[in-house]
Amino acid sequence: MKIAVVAPSCTLKPEVAEAVTAIAAARGDVELLIHPQSFLSDGHFAGPDAARLAALREVMADDSVDAIWFARGGYGSNRIAEDAVKDLPAPARKKQYLGYSDAGFLLAAFHKAGLTVAHGPMVQDVARSGGDAAIHRALDWLVRRDAAALEPGLEPGTPAMAFNLTVLSTLLGTAIEPDFAGVQLLIEDVAEHEYRIDRAMFHVTGSPALRRASAIRMGRMSEIPDNDPEFGSDAESIVRDWCKRAGIAFRGRADIGHDAANKVVPFK
Amino acid sequence: MKIAVVAPSCTLKPEVAEAVTAIAAARGDVELLIHPQSFLSDGHFAGPDAARLAALREVMADDSVDAIWFARGGYGSNRIAEDAVKDLPAPARKKQYLGYSDAGFLLAAFHKAGLTVAHGPMVQDVARSGGDAAIHRALDWLVRRDAAALEPGLEPGTPAMAFNLTVLSTLLGTAIEPDFAGVQLLIEDVAEHEYRIDRAMFHVTGSPALRRASAIRMGRMSEIPDNDPEFGSDAESIVRDWCKRAGIAFRGRADIGHDAANKVVPFK
Repeated sequence: MKIAVVAPSCTLKPEVAEAVTAIAAARGDVELLIHPQSFLSDGHFAGPDAARLAALREVMADDSVDAIWFARGGYGSNRIAEDAVKDLPAPARKKQYLGYSDAGFLLAAFHKAGLTVAHGPMVQDVARSGGDAAIHRALDWLVRRDAAALEPGLEPGTPAMAFNLTVLSTLLGTAIEPDFAGVQLLIEDVAEHEYRIDRAMFHVTGSPALRRASAIRMGRMSEIPDNDPEFGSDAESIVRDWCKRAGIAFRGRADIGHDAANKVVPFK
Repeated sequence: MKIAVVAPSCTLKPEVAEAVTAIAAARGDVELLIHPQSFLSDGHFAGPDAARLAALREVMADDSVDAIWFARGGYGSNRIAEDAVKDLPAPARKKQYLGYSDAGFLLAAFHKAGLTVAHGPMVQDVARSGGDAAIHRALDWLVRRDAAALEPGLEPGTPAMAFNLTVLSTLLGTAIEPDFAGVQLLIEDVAEHEYRIDRAMFHVTGSPALRRASAIRMGRMSEIPDNDPEFGSDAESIVRDWCKRAGIAFRGRADIGHDAANKVVPFK
């Protein structure tokens, strides 16, 4: 099993790559190829758009690569997402793609293009407290589709997608918006004020395309900065409220988020 | 000339209202009615949704009121914007509406409903350095349509709109999205990181509806928090880049922003 790592958003630190490479080596069931592009730095990004796109397209086209694992989020994969799925080489269609957070732009574009994507832990998660478990979960999923890695509320037969709420909000209406019809949609976010969560929920639940989703479940909304004054309702109340207003079923909580416990959600 | 002030977003402080009332009284050409709802407080908002909506609907229906001036932004007018334009009473159609920032949700909904709106200073701006000038500019516009209050780059015959970029991003695709066809679109923002400006520009310029705008001009992007690491390009470069990618003409800068110099942009 050969897994390629690229960084379509922000730069990966060498020590993070080394830690994950050591975990993979100790497992013995996977060969991890960290593309040198992952360590590039160009302002906010892991290299210029052209370099990030080229590395991604290179591993997508590589027939010897079984899966592509996004190194980390941050911001920037949206800048190359549309180009990444143009004129897809055949090997791109035989792989699994895994990531979350900013990589959600790629999950959306790739799923729309018919590729096999899942929302789940990334290489950078090794740096979290308990991060080894997240790395093993990601590899267990990529290497052997271990059902234990899956978000436990997923229902067989019901298609699902998972997104960072802010990423979801900012891809709606663009060329990479996927088809939400009948999909159970899992959302999570990190470091957004409650008023921003409320505004993003207004936006996504106000989308006629998104209202075709069968239901919404809420993952963890973590590191919410203090609202001044107190907002007046918590994140779950906010999500419930907008689902109710929009006539979208709210199906409770989901085991995803910006943390080591983040479970895998295959899109289908 | 009778102008009603309501607060569809966040609470107005009494001392701010007093300062603006004093300016209006000294002018002698305007009667300012600060609706008591403006001083309500309910968590993040100037009273519950129902109270903010009721006050807004009350002054919209009041035949003796010539104009409605939004007290301030913050966040929350989107929560009542759709209901505010339902079954419009006839007097609502005879008024001018003025505000910006979060009030952009109302400008969009009201313009879409055929009401007469303008993007410009609000009551709260008196608290800014040089804020008196912003108050006089708003009143000069509301009372006598003083052309000196207008954003200087507006072209006769070319319809225009102005929005806070983040507000614009989060209203796209919702029921309050106005028709951008042929419109020169002015954007501004405050206190957003460059990566957030970039992401919002990706979103708005990725909208087929917004690509029908004739051009974009950029107002001030102020109080941009530090990006770590440095983003790599400034706000104007970001806006230019996304306009170019989307095939939208970039027509340079605009004299609007979260400051006392903010000029008036009537929607048409």
